[in-house]
Amino acid sequence: MSPTPVLLHFEEDRDFAHSLAKAAGMQVLTVQRHRFPDGELKLRLPATLPKQVVVLRTLNDPNEKLVELLMVADSARGTGARHLSLVAPYLAYMRQDIAFNPGEVVSQRVVGRFLAGLFNAVITVDPHLHRVATLQEAVPVPQAIVLSGAPLLADLIATQRPGALLMGPDEESAQWIAQAAARHGSDYGVCRKVRHGDRAVTIELPSVPVAGRAVVLLDDVASSGHTLAEAARLLLTAGATSVDVAVTHALFAQGAIELVASAGVQHIWSTDCIAHPSNAVSMAGSIAAALSTMFATETTP
Amino acid sequence: MSPTPVLLHFEEDRDFAHSLAKAAGMQVLTVQRHRFPDGELKLRLPATLPKQVVVLRTLNDPNEKLVELLMVADSARGTGARHLSLVAPYLAYMRQDIAFNPGEVVSQRVVGRFLAGLFNAVITVDPHLHRVATLQEAVPVPQAIVLSGAPLLADLIATQRPGALLMGPDEESAQWIAQAAARHGSDYGVCRKVRHGDRAVTIELPSVPVAGRAVVLLDDVASSGHTLAEAARLLLTAGATSVDVAVTHALFAQGAIELVASAGVQHIWSTDCIAHPSNAVSMAGSIAAALSTMFATETTP
Repeated sequence: MSPTPVLLHFEEDRDFAHSLAKAAGMQVLTVQRHRFPDGELKLRLPATLPKQVVVLRTLNDPNEKLVELLMVADSARGTGARHLSLVAPYLAYMRQDIAFNPGEVVSQRVVGRFLAGLFNAVITVDPHLHRVATLQEAVPVPQAIVLSGAPLLADLIATQRPGALLMGPDEESAQWIAQAAARHGSDYGVCRKVRHGDRAVTIELPSVPVAGRAVVLLDDVASSGHTLAEAARLLLTAGATSVDVAVTHALFAQGAIELVASAGVQHIWSTDCIAHPSNAVSMAGSIAAALSTMFATETTP
Repeated sequence: MSPTPVLLHFEEDRDFAHSLAKAAGMQVLTVQRHRFPDGELKLRLPATLPKQVVVLRTLNDPNEKLVELLMVADSARGTGARHLSLVAPYLAYMRQDIAFNPGEVVSQRVVGRFLAGLFNAVITVDPHLHRVATLQEAVPVPQAIVLSGAPLLADLIATQRPGALLMGPDEESAQWIAQAAARHGSDYGVCRKVRHGDRAVTIELPSVPVAGRAVVLLDDVASSGHTLAEAARLLLTAGATSVDVAVTHALFAQGAIELVASAGVQHIWSTDCIAHPSNAVSMAGSIAAALSTMFATETTP
């Protein structure tokens, strides 16, 4: 497809956008944003756009960004775009996939359908899916592409902590941990987690011996930090020589880093899906490769 | 239509919701909201809903509320609602109705179509429409009902400042001021406003004599307060004996009240379209009357 596909980004994602666009052979253009005193947003897109447009927006703190995406997608289609893709390295609202109580909003379905109404394709990294097998069930777009941060994190761990024991903080991460461990033939284990509320969890260590081992807690997302902190404390009590943390998505709510550090964790490593001081590996190359494949295979109206 | 229509509201709008529902003969039910540490929202609606559902949400600080409305509307339709109305005493994003520069998002059109995709009817008060003649052009729902805060504010002024000169801060308010003034046969004038940025405006007084008069600045919305403050200063310099302010929508960004007070304004009165310490008259009765008319006339699928 010609002319060159465009990558639309917001100013705060400038560095990631440029890495991504360079690797994927795209032109980079900025969405200008202005906030009025009353909280309303004014967005300005480039005056003309090619048919193939990719919007980069990682969806931590998602609510306002969802409104921005509505505005950008709607306006981009009025400005020439025919095939609109969303690159959301972190995709929000993927956790609530059923109503646990009558009347609860199934936000995964609502937000998923909303995004599918705006975009032809979605690319994300390690979405937090539970009872749903594929991203396309949650976000019913023609092309739903899932990448993983686990390989790059596993490579980093192999360099920084050779021979470390990889530990998943809960059963949901079991398959993901197993794949990451297989990459370098690492030992691994998976904890058992019982949640009592947003910030209250109890953890049980697996039967894998941890005494005398360097342990790295590996997970897709870190939010409040309570799970990681609790697991780290148990591991150190059980004789681990060190505990580090590696996560794809460094959400880290306020106070979370301090909590994890106070539990004895030495290093925190994350991918740059969410910009954070702990970022240690970049997903730009993997996402660029997915985009290149998409451009090569996709046919647009 | 039976059974009784339901008014869905959020906890913070409890008082307004109860006044409104009582006057309109509706049942009141609450949308429960929980915010996770990562900023995502969890909403819970009543387990079952009748066919006729009204959602109350005033849209100051609109971005997150637009996401809530998406969730509520989508889920309400899955829970029995067939005719969904939005009561938004303050309706956001009505100002940007054209692209002043190429590529600018016409947020009125985007948000208007978004709301029209969720609701069958919208009721609001004094929407800030410029180049668009009717609310239905901005929000293309089958029923778009516009009420005005001007009559109640004019009545209040007639009581509090009998014989006051009503003054509109800019030409856009001319017709609205004229109607409010006609209600009690008040004198009125309209200033000329030149805007140099979000917070920078210059004002020219009209030729109406203000010396020795009690003046009330009357407008649909007050945001930064700069326009009102500038007008008040000019009026007092020109010999007005007092200047008060009456507005439908008390947006009042941070520091706005102090700015207006420091310009010599004595009282600020507003409707309760946006909850604010200055609220002096309630729109609940007018909105209830509009709802009652709507219930009586509307036919749903």
